[in-house]
Amino acid sequence: MADAITPRNEDYSQWYIDVVRSAKLADYSPVKGCMIIRPNGMALWENMQQALDRMFKETGHVNAYFPLLIPQSFLEREAEHVEGFAKECAIVTHSRLVTDETGRLVPDPESKLEENMVIRPTSETIIWDSYGKWIQSWRDLPILINQWANIVRWEMRTRLFLRTSEFLWQEGHTAHETREEAVEETLRMQGVYATFAEEYMAVPVLKGVKTAAERFPGALDTYCIEALMQNRWALQAGTSHFLGQNFAKAFNVQFQNRNNDLEYVWATSWGVSTRLVGAIVMTHSDDQGLVLPPRLAPTQVVIVPIVRKNTDSSVVTDEAESIRKELAARGIRVHLDARDDQRPGWKFTEYEVQGVPIRIAIGPRDVENGTVEIARRDTSEKKSAPRAGLADTVADLLDSIQKNLFDRSIKFREEHTTRVDSYNDFKEVLDDKGGFIEAHWDGSPETEARVKEETKATIRCILNDQEKEAGVDMISGKPSDGRVVFARAF
Amino acid sequence: MADAITPRNEDYSQWYIDVVRSAKLADYSPVKGCMIIRPNGMALWENMQQALDRMFKETGHVNAYFPLLIPQSFLEREAEHVEGFAKECAIVTHSRLVTDETGRLVPDPESKLEENMVIRPTSETIIWDSYGKWIQSWRDLPILINQWANIVRWEMRTRLFLRTSEFLWQEGHTAHETREEAVEETLRMQGVYATFAEEYMAVPVLKGVKTAAERFPGALDTYCIEALMQNRWALQAGTSHFLGQNFAKAFNVQFQNRNNDLEYVWATSWGVSTRLVGAIVMTHSDDQGLVLPPRLAPTQVVIVPIVRKNTDSSVVTDEAESIRKELAARGIRVHLDARDDQRPGWKFTEYEVQGVPIRIAIGPRDVENGTVEIARRDTSEKKSAPRAGLADTVADLLDSIQKNLFDRSIKFREEHTTRVDSYNDFKEVLDDKGGFIEAHWDGSPETEARVKEETKATIRCILNDQEKEAGVDMISGKPSDGRVVFARAF
Repeated sequence: MADAITPRNEDYSQWYIDVVRSAKLADYSPVKGCMIIRPNGMALWENMQQALDRMFKETGHVNAYFPLLIPQSFLEREAEHVEGFAKECAIVTHSRLVTDETGRLVPDPESKLEENMVIRPTSETIIWDSYGKWIQSWRDLPILINQWANIVRWEMRTRLFLRTSEFLWQEGHTAHETREEAVEETLRMQGVYATFAEEYMAVPVLKGVKTAAERFPGALDTYCIEALMQNRWALQAGTSHFLGQNFAKAFNVQFQNRNNDLEYVWATSWGVSTRLVGAIVMTHSDDQGLVLPPRLAPTQVVIVPIVRKNTDSSVVTDEAESIRKELAARGIRVHLDARDDQRPGWKFTEYEVQGVPIRIAIGPRDVENGTVEIARRDTSEKKSAPRAGLADTVADLLDSIQKNLFDRSIKFREEHTTRVDSYNDFKEVLDDKGGFIEAHWDGSPETEARVKEETKATIRCILNDQEKEAGVDMISGKPSDGRVVFARAF
Repeated sequence: MADAITPRNEDYSQWYIDVVRSAKLADYSPVKGCMIIRPNGMALWENMQQALDRMFKETGHVNAYFPLLIPQSFLEREAEHVEGFAKECAIVTHSRLVTDETGRLVPDPESKLEENMVIRPTSETIIWDSYGKWIQSWRDLPILINQWANIVRWEMRTRLFLRTSEFLWQEGHTAHETREEAVEETLRMQGVYATFAEEYMAVPVLKGVKTAAERFPGALDTYCIEALMQNRWALQAGTSHFLGQNFAKAFNVQFQNRNNDLEYVWATSWGVSTRLVGAIVMTHSDDQGLVLPPRLAPTQVVIVPIVRKNTDSSVVTDEAESIRKELAARGIRVHLDARDDQRPGWKFTEYEVQGVPIRIAIGPRDVENGTVEIARRDTSEKKSAPRAGLADTVADLLDSIQKNLFDRSIKFREEHTTRVDSYNDFKEVLDDKGGFIEAHWDGSPETEARVKEETKATIRCILNDQEKEAGVDMISGKPSDGRVVFARAF
C-alpha cells in the first residue's frame, strides 16, 4: 500500500514526488541524479513513444541510431554549442578496470583514451559528422531522421522526470536544401508536439518562439511549447530548433544545389523527453494520487469483483471476466484484478493512486440487477450503470474523461493568464496569482535579465500568433509592438 | 548506387561488410568500435523489437528502465561477474569540461567523481540493487522485468552488428521464489528466442546449454541458441542464464518465504542484441546483396512502374498506385517507387541490394494485358502474374519466401552437421567442410581447452534434447554418455 501523499497545498514539490513514487512511476537510483523508470512509468512512456513515433513517420521521418559516445573534439567545433551546453557532462577517460595492489578496482592507466569521450548531451555534432559523408547533392536532401535515445547531462539539482542526469528522449535531426524548407520543418514539428500534448496528454500548450537568451545554443531560433502546471509555474514541454547553417559550417557539410553551386546545408533539430511524464503528473493529478489521460493510460479500466470470503464467488467472477473480454474486444486496455488475497477497498485505493481512469466494481447484487458500479478517476464520481451496452458506456466515458481533463486544464490556464501593464502589477500578480503574465517588452536583453534577476520569472515565449498591439516596455518605457509571455518556470 | 559487392567465396568477411554497407543497414562511426545504425537497419531492428516485445509481454513480462551508469563498487560485489566480464568497459571519471590555458577542453580536475562510474556492460548489478528494495516477501515475487537499452563493452576487434563496442539489446532480469521456477523461466525464454529466430528471422537454431567454460560469469547455467552462418561458422544468437542465488547474495536480497523463513531470491537474466541483424544478413544474403525474411522486412514489396520518357505514363502510374493501395489494405508493407529521375534498371538493382523480398514491375503492355511481372529476391525467379487477385498472390508468395529461406537454411545446416568419432576426423571435417560437429566429450575442461587451443573450435552447446549414447571422448578416451556440438564461431 502506498504511503500517504502530501497535499498539494502543503508542499507542492513533495506532493509531486509522493505521487510519482506512490504510483510506482519511478524511483531514485543509487546513481546520483539518475532515476529508475518502473514498469508503470515505462508503460506510460511507451504509449507516448508509440503515438509520437507514428506522428513522426506520418510526417516523413525515419529512425536511426548514432553512437552514445562523442569525441570531445566534436563538441569544440560549434563554439556556442559547447559553451552553452556541452560542458556539464559525463566524461569517459579510460576503457579498462584493473585490480590494484590493495585488491580494489581502478582505471588501468594504460587504458587511458587518446581522446576523451563524452556521453551525448544531445547529438547534433555526431550526427552532422555523418551527414557530411551522406550529403553530396541536393538529390540527397532532405534527410529526415529521428533517434530514440538516452542522454546524460550532469545536473546538480534533480527532480524525478523533470530534471535528471540521465533521461530518455527523441531527437529529430533534419537537413534541407533551403532556409525556407528548414523553417517550415521547425514549425511543423512544433505543431506535432503541440498536437500530441493537447490530444494525447490533454495538456494545453502555448506555441511560441524563445528570446535570444533562452535559445538552444547553436540555434538561430528555438520554437517551444509551454504548459502551465498546477502550482502556476510554466513547464517547457518540447523544443524545435532552426539551426540555420551553423552545424553544416562547423562540420563542413556542403551540397551541390540545383544551380550546381556549393552551399551549406540548412538544419533543424527537435526533441521531447521523459520530462513529459512529469508534465502529465503535474497537470492532472490530485491529492489522492496520479490522474492519467485515457489515451495514454497503460490501463484504462480496472475491474474489481466484490466477493465475500467463504461464499461462492463464481457468479461475480464469471461476470467480471465476461466484462473484461467485452471491453478488451472493443480495444480498451482493461485489467481484471481477481486476486483474493487483497480486499476491494485496498484495491480501490491502489488503482486510484495509480491513476487508472475508470474503475468498475461488481458484486452479487449487481449481477442480480444487471448493473455495475462505475467510478471515474478525474471527478471521483460514482454511478450505477446497466451491464447491457457496457462497452459503449465505457468507451464514451473514456472520451469524456479525456475531454474533461483537457477542458479543466484550459480553464485553469485561462484563469491564470493575466495581462499587466506595469512592473508593480507584474510583481504582484506573479507573487499572488502566478501563471502566465502577458506584458509588453522592448526586445532588449537588459529588461529580460532584470526581470529574471528580480522576480525569477522568464520570458517563456513570444507566441507564434502574437497579436500586434502598440505598448511600452513595463520597465524601460521603450516602445513594443506586442506582448510576450512571462512566468516562473521549472 | 551501391559499390560492387565482394563475392562470398572470395572474401566472406569483406562480403559481409559490403552487404551491410551497400544495403545501408549500418556504417562505421568516428567513434572507434561503434556503429551508426542507418534507417534501413533501424527499421529492421524495430520490427524485430516489436515481435520480441510482444512475445515477452505474452509471457508475462513488463518493461522498465535502469540507469546507464553503474557505480564501480557495484561491479565488485559479484567476483566472477567482474572478473569475466566487466573490466573492458567505458569508465566515467569526471563530470565537467573546462577550457585550459591553451583554449582546449579538458576534464575539470574539480569535477573528478568521488566514485568512478562504468557505462553498463550488462545490468545485473544495478538491477539487483533495486530488487533489494522492492522485495520483502514471496508476495512480491516473481518480478518479470525486461529492459531495452544500449550497452558498452570495450572491444578491440569489431565487426558491424556482430561485435561492436556499443550495441542495442534487451535484457530480461527476473526474480523468483524457487530454483525450479527460475530454471523454468530460463528455459521458457530460451524457447521464446528459438521461436523468434526460426519463425521471424527464418534462422534455424540449436537449443542447448553452455559448458562451464563458456558460461556467463556469475551464472550457474547459460542456455543458448546457436545458428550456423554461410561460412559454416556458428553464431551464438541469444542466451538465457540461470543465475541461482549469486546476485541475490551479492546484493543481499532475501525474502520471507511461505514458511516465514528468510531466503535468497532466485534469478535469471536473458538477452538478445542487434547482433541478430548480423545473423539475418549472414544466413540469407547472397552475392547480389541483402536477402530479408518477409516477416521482418521493413519493405516487403516494391512496385516499380516502367515508363518511357516523353510518353504519357499516367496509365501505368495510376495502375501502380492502385496496386499499392490494394496491397497496403491487405496489411502488406509496400513501397511504390515512382521517381522519374532514376531508370527502372537502377531501381531493380537498388532494391535487390536492399533485400526487398518481392519486386513488382508494371509497364504499358502489362496494363493492357492485365498482368504484372513479379520477381522474388530469394531465388531471383521472375514470372508474369495476373493483376486480378494480386494481393492474394503476393501474400502467398511472401509466405513461400519465408518458408523457403528457413527450409534452405535447415538444409544447409543438415548438410553441415557431421558426427565424428576421432580427433583426426574432427580436424579434417572442421577444416574441409566446417559446420557443426557432434562428438563425444568426457566433460573435462582439459579436453575442451585443448580442442579450442589446437583448432579454434569450441563446444557451442550440449543440446537440450541431447541423445544418450555411450561413447568415448575423442581425445582422452574417457567415457562419455552423449555427443556435444562443436564449431568454429564468431
